[in-house]
Amino acid sequence: VDAPRLIRRKRDGEELSSAEIDAFVGGLMTGDVDPEQAAALLMAGVIRGFTPDEAVALTAALVASGRTLDLTSMSRPTVDKHSTGGVADTTTLVVAPVLAACGVAVVKLSGRSLGHTGGTIDKLEAIPGMRLNLAPDALIAQADAVGVAVGSATAEIAPADAVLYALRDATATIDDVALVAASVMSKKIAGGAQSIVLDIKTGGGAFFTDVDEARSLAALCTRIGEAHQRRVTAVVSDMSRPLGRAVGNALEVAAAVDVLRGEAGGQLRELSCVLAVEALCLTGSERDEARRRVDDAISTGEALESLRRWISAQGGDPRLADDPWDVLTRAPVVSEVTAASSGFVNAMSCREIGEVAGGLGAGRRRRGDVIDPRVGIELLVTVGDEVTSGERVAWVHAANAPDADSAVSALRGMIDVGEERVEPPPLVLGVSSSADGARRSRT
Amino acid sequence: VDAPRLIRRKRDGEELSSAEIDAFVGGLMTGDVDPEQAAALLMAGVIRGFTPDEAVALTAALVASGRTLDLTSMSRPTVDKHSTGGVADTTTLVVAPVLAACGVAVVKLSGRSLGHTGGTIDKLEAIPGMRLNLAPDALIAQADAVGVAVGSATAEIAPADAVLYALRDATATIDDVALVAASVMSKKIAGGAQSIVLDIKTGGGAFFTDVDEARSLAALCTRIGEAHQRRVTAVVSDMSRPLGRAVGNALEVAAAVDVLRGEAGGQLRELSCVLAVEALCLTGSERDEARRRVDDAISTGEALESLRRWISAQGGDPRLADDPWDVLTRAPVVSEVTAASSGFVNAMSCREIGEVAGGLGAGRRRRGDVIDPRVGIELLVTVGDEVTSGERVAWVHAANAPDADSAVSALRGMIDVGEERVEPPPLVLGVSSSADGARRSRT
Repeated sequence: VDAPRLIRRKRDGEELSSAEIDAFVGGLMTGDVDPEQAAALLMAGVIRGFTPDEAVALTAALVASGRTLDLTSMSRPTVDKHSTGGVADTTTLVVAPVLAACGVAVVKLSGRSLGHTGGTIDKLEAIPGMRLNLAPDALIAQADAVGVAVGSATAEIAPADAVLYALRDATATIDDVALVAASVMSKKIAGGAQSIVLDIKTGGGAFFTDVDEARSLAALCTRIGEAHQRRVTAVVSDMSRPLGRAVGNALEVAAAVDVLRGEAGGQLRELSCVLAVEALCLTGSERDEARRRVDDAISTGEALESLRRWISAQGGDPRLADDPWDVLTRAPVVSEVTAASSGFVNAMSCREIGEVAGGLGAGRRRRGDVIDPRVGIELLVTVGDEVTSGERVAWVHAANAPDADSAVSALRGMIDVGEERVEPPPLVLGVSSSADGARRSRT
Repeated sequence: VDAPRLIRRKRDGEELSSAEIDAFVGGLMTGDVDPEQAAALLMAGVIRGFTPDEAVALTAALVASGRTLDLTSMSRPTVDKHSTGGVADTTTLVVAPVLAACGVAVVKLSGRSLGHTGGTIDKLEAIPGMRLNLAPDALIAQADAVGVAVGSATAEIAPADAVLYALRDATATIDDVALVAASVMSKKIAGGAQSIVLDIKTGGGAFFTDVDEARSLAALCTRIGEAHQRRVTAVVSDMSRPLGRAVGNALEVAAAVDVLRGEAGGQLRELSCVLAVEALCLTGSERDEARRRVDDAISTGEALESLRRWISAQGGDPRLADDPWDVLTRAPVVSEVTAASSGFVNAMSCREIGEVAGGLGAGRRRRGDVIDPRVGIELLVTVGDEVTSGERVAWVHAANAPDADSAVSALRGMIDVGEERVEPPPLVLGVSSSADGARRSRT
């Protein structure tokens, strides 16, 4: 591969062919292309713009760099689900059992997070005994039997994505819609599911704070999926405030169980149901029927039963479904945060709240940091709620008193109370979908 | 140094400060900044554009990466000279002895070429016995004594430039005016001369084929020199046809001797005199006086005597000045090229003629290739000359008959003969100068 020629073409704003992109990525993996050449190509593309066809080709090249899971032998329709990440965002733990109860198989390879709060794998590790290092065959067999299997991502899936990600992180080429889309979709496509539901976050606590960029990412992911013969729906959802009321790994597991038990409503339940309905629509359900099945799965307890079977299949204690705190470990220090004044909650500093949880030990600053599953924040209010001065608005769960004290004082300034009631933003800000091959886009 | 932050700023079109550029280049040399980060920054700058102030700062950082020569103790005014490189361009071997004869000291560190024809060092190596690996002290002492010293560039001078050059070569960031200017000027400034004459080539046989880019490079080099308290004149000259009539290392040495003996005119003499006059003007001469001194240096034989003393001082055979072919080695096979039709020479494929010479062994394709000093091409005509079908238009000097045959047949198509006489382009297409601190620019 003549790397300088391809770099020069991209530098000058030309479009690279699939064959060229494939040769470049392949060359990077064999050492025929140097990391500095890849860095130069990435920067040229970020500034000049990668076309949708280039994003499709890059995705294919990333998929081809590793192994792919073959789920075609499964008896159930297969669904994968991915969120671009936010604060108090534990929808997977709700959506997966709901879909399993509706007859769909959820097969998901998930990463450890590098951020202020944990990824799905980190949350599941808060459950004692959970085995997450599942071989592909075991993953498929379990999903066929109990409807859900979630394993930790292996280096065998899209290894070129890990190489490019590290390069992007070092070279200020992280926040590019096409590169993010190719990265996300390569792992979903290699994961083998026929239907893919994406939750693209936008707002202050999200990676893409701008809603138009989030919508572009949703549309591009959908297009990439179509080009790879997958059905994709990408929901753009609000992350200007924490999604749920729990921030932290054990706390979020408990919050998901509360939703599945029918004991909690709010945005976590609402968005989980939206995503589950979209998934069922991708697998052939009518929308009204899908809505009814999702509601029923929760109200009849079938989703809770699916959770129990899932957790049990991966070695966790199924009593989690009966009383999460029988199984999960509470933090030793719990301190309250009170409102500084009376009025209405007008805004919550979403990213900053996540960072406070991270500071308590709920997330990682760098690869290899150890997460404390017990710690985090329980929010008792959200945007639009009325509060009285001195009223309790949050609990801090901490490993020790000094950590708790500093989190309490930090949090007080992050819940903004004003005199006028502010309408919270809508939860869903856009949807891109390739359902049944007919592309539609709603915003 | 927070490399991703600096890369991001350049990616977004911002200007980096001197301190930031210095920290980035310094970090690259210590390993604190990765080559892929440097590649990303270079690409961002090439697309967004480096400002003149950034080019000045980059030059300073490259100079600071290595040692600098201190020529302030020398009794003569010091001049350095650099050409961006062309075909049949051997002005250094004329200009340096002329200036020495005029009382100026030329101290020059020169590179080995990576191109179709040799660099100054390669040409000097065609002279048996020449020592080119001079230590700085020896270089300074010789220049003070005989007026000229040319040594091969050492890794101690601007080592960061070599690192960046290799990166640029691999990442399609070679042909950027600011990066070329910083690269050229860093080595000249580290070389210590107070006055610097640059010959910026433009046209088909040059690195920058576009005359506006060449003029921008000339102006930027001048500005960088001013910012580093050097007097600089940058001449933009035509390289749409070979400058002289000899292409190849020994052939070019002989051609330079012929000019110094007053036996040859043409463009090689013309441009050498332009450059020598500009150098004398930088060291304080009036222009008319400078012209007279340069002409006198050749006509009186003083420049030839300077050549003799220079060559002798570096171990070469001074009889070169009397009869170059007494000292130089001729190629074993010499074949003639004849005109295919009658008419006027309208154009010569300059770069291609250089490549034929390179194919004969006069240049390098890659670092470490061995040059054959004997081989090359003697052109007997230039643009505007009238020729008759079958008339000899060039000699090929080759190591063997097959090489000669293939060069002869290739060359025939590179000398374009038409019915109408075409006026050759002007030799000098622009001048940027910082003489006497008063900036002037003539085009």
